[in-house]
Amino acid sequence: MDSRAGLAATPGALPYYVAFSQLLGLTVVAMTGAWLGLYRGGIAWEGALQFNVHPLSMVIGLIFLQGDALLVYRVFRNETKRTTKVLHGLLHVFALVIALVGVVAVFDYHRKKGYADLYSLHSWCGLLVLVLYFLQWLVGLSFFLFPGASFSLRSRYRPQHVFFGAAIFLLSVGTALLGLKEALLFKLGAKYSTFEAEGVLANVLGLLLVGFGVTVLYILTRSDWKRPPQAEEQALSMDFKTLTEGDSPGSQ
Amino acid sequence: MDSRAGLAATPGALPYYVAFSQLLGLTVVAMTGAWLGLYRGGIAWEGALQFNVHPLSMVIGLIFLQGDALLVYRVFRNETKRTTKVLHGLLHVFALVIALVGVVAVFDYHRKKGYADLYSLHSWCGLLVLVLYFLQWLVGLSFFLFPGASFSLRSRYRPQHVFFGAAIFLLSVGTALLGLKEALLFKLGAKYSTFEAEGVLANVLGLLLVGFGVTVLYILTRSDWKRPPQAEEQALSMDFKTLTEGDSPGSQ
Repeated sequence: MDSRAGLAATPGALPYYVAFSQLLGLTVVAMTGAWLGLYRGGIAWEGALQFNVHPLSMVIGLIFLQGDALLVYRVFRNETKRTTKVLHGLLHVFALVIALVGVVAVFDYHRKKGYADLYSLHSWCGLLVLVLYFLQWLVGLSFFLFPGASFSLRSRYRPQHVFFGAAIFLLSVGTALLGLKEALLFKLGAKYSTFEAEGVLANVLGLLLVGFGVTVLYILTRSDWKRPPQAEEQALSMDFKTLTEGDSPGSQ
Repeated sequence: MDSRAGLAATPGALPYYVAFSQLLGLTVVAMTGAWLGLYRGGIAWEGALQFNVHPLSMVIGLIFLQGDALLVYRVFRNETKRTTKVLHGLLHVFALVIALVGVVAVFDYHRKKGYADLYSLHSWCGLLVLVLYFLQWLVGLSFFLFPGASFSLRSRYRPQHVFFGAAIFLLSVGTALLGLKEALLFKLGAKYSTFEAEGVLANVLGLLLVGFGVTVLYILTRSDWKRPPQAEEQALSMDFKTLTEGDSPGSQ
């Protein structure tokens, strides 16, 4: 455990990467708002503007908040594991609730306008994301927050939870790009190819979305930035390590 | 090294996941061909069909071959590191050459038709992928294949190479989805919402692209499926480990 104990201090570059990710994430949210305000007439729950609730809610919920929920274990390195878990779970709940508002907005808008639902690749990917996101949250809650699951069961599930969490987040970013593209082509059509200001702004927004996704993934996957185990977890893992590796607790 | 030596046997489930990834990848290539054949008049270098060279080449090069190049270290576990590296580098060269044919096809088609270039989010993402892909290949070649780079330099660069390799692959999948969506909306327009056969086929193709991306990423990131170090690498790493950790070679 000696080498791990050395990680308890926050790695030098981590705060800068986290700050950069937040700058990117907030820029994405602000730019989505600016796009809707400047070129789509703003946001309201009534009439044609109801559609605009959809992109803004999805970007706040399934991009910014979901991304930040993934970073909780990298940012809060010395709080208790339980506090960090609750924050991680709560951020995902906020993300899901805000995303559901966005989903209701687009279905309600389609219904009032008599448009078809769920025909596009964007909507298929979006539906997949929502179902997987909800399942991942439920399974995560039952494994990690309820006391029933054993330490060994949690240890085996954890890498799967992390992988699918990252995959769902990336699929959310991809779905946002598809939606942005759809919104551009429906409205601009052939004018998209004349470098209209709205098209250029939306392309830049798309690249920033990609940048946010890549930055969150980088922070998440860098092995020397992982959260160091706390004293409480080390105590918990004692029995398991003793059983499986034959280490004596005294050797820790 | 005892615990690592136990990994020399191929993990039980790995071949099934690799087979599944190949099934998905080949289905994606076949389905792209079927889409272009059934709904877009097939493929040729002349006239309107020249455009169709673009999606097929990009899917073969930057999706299927790039994905397989990432899997080389998981599939060839007992070949020498050098053989595996050369295969990894060559697959990426094939992928890049086939992708360049696809890029030339679309620029040539645009030029003949008088269409604008590089205005869409798809084209911006695609250009970014190509530049990053070429840079990653060049930097990878100079670090890993030429004998100049020291063991410690390679060790420090390796995680960055793996991260950016995975990120470029995922961005390639995202760019393909954007291109598919663009091709559908340009041709089908409002008919997309009537669940036209072409739209449904292309949506399924999109989901299969996502499935291939996720499967490759899963195989790549599962920690117990990583390639075990070979005897030659252990010998190479001796001096470095001796210097940094104070291990004596005899203790290996």
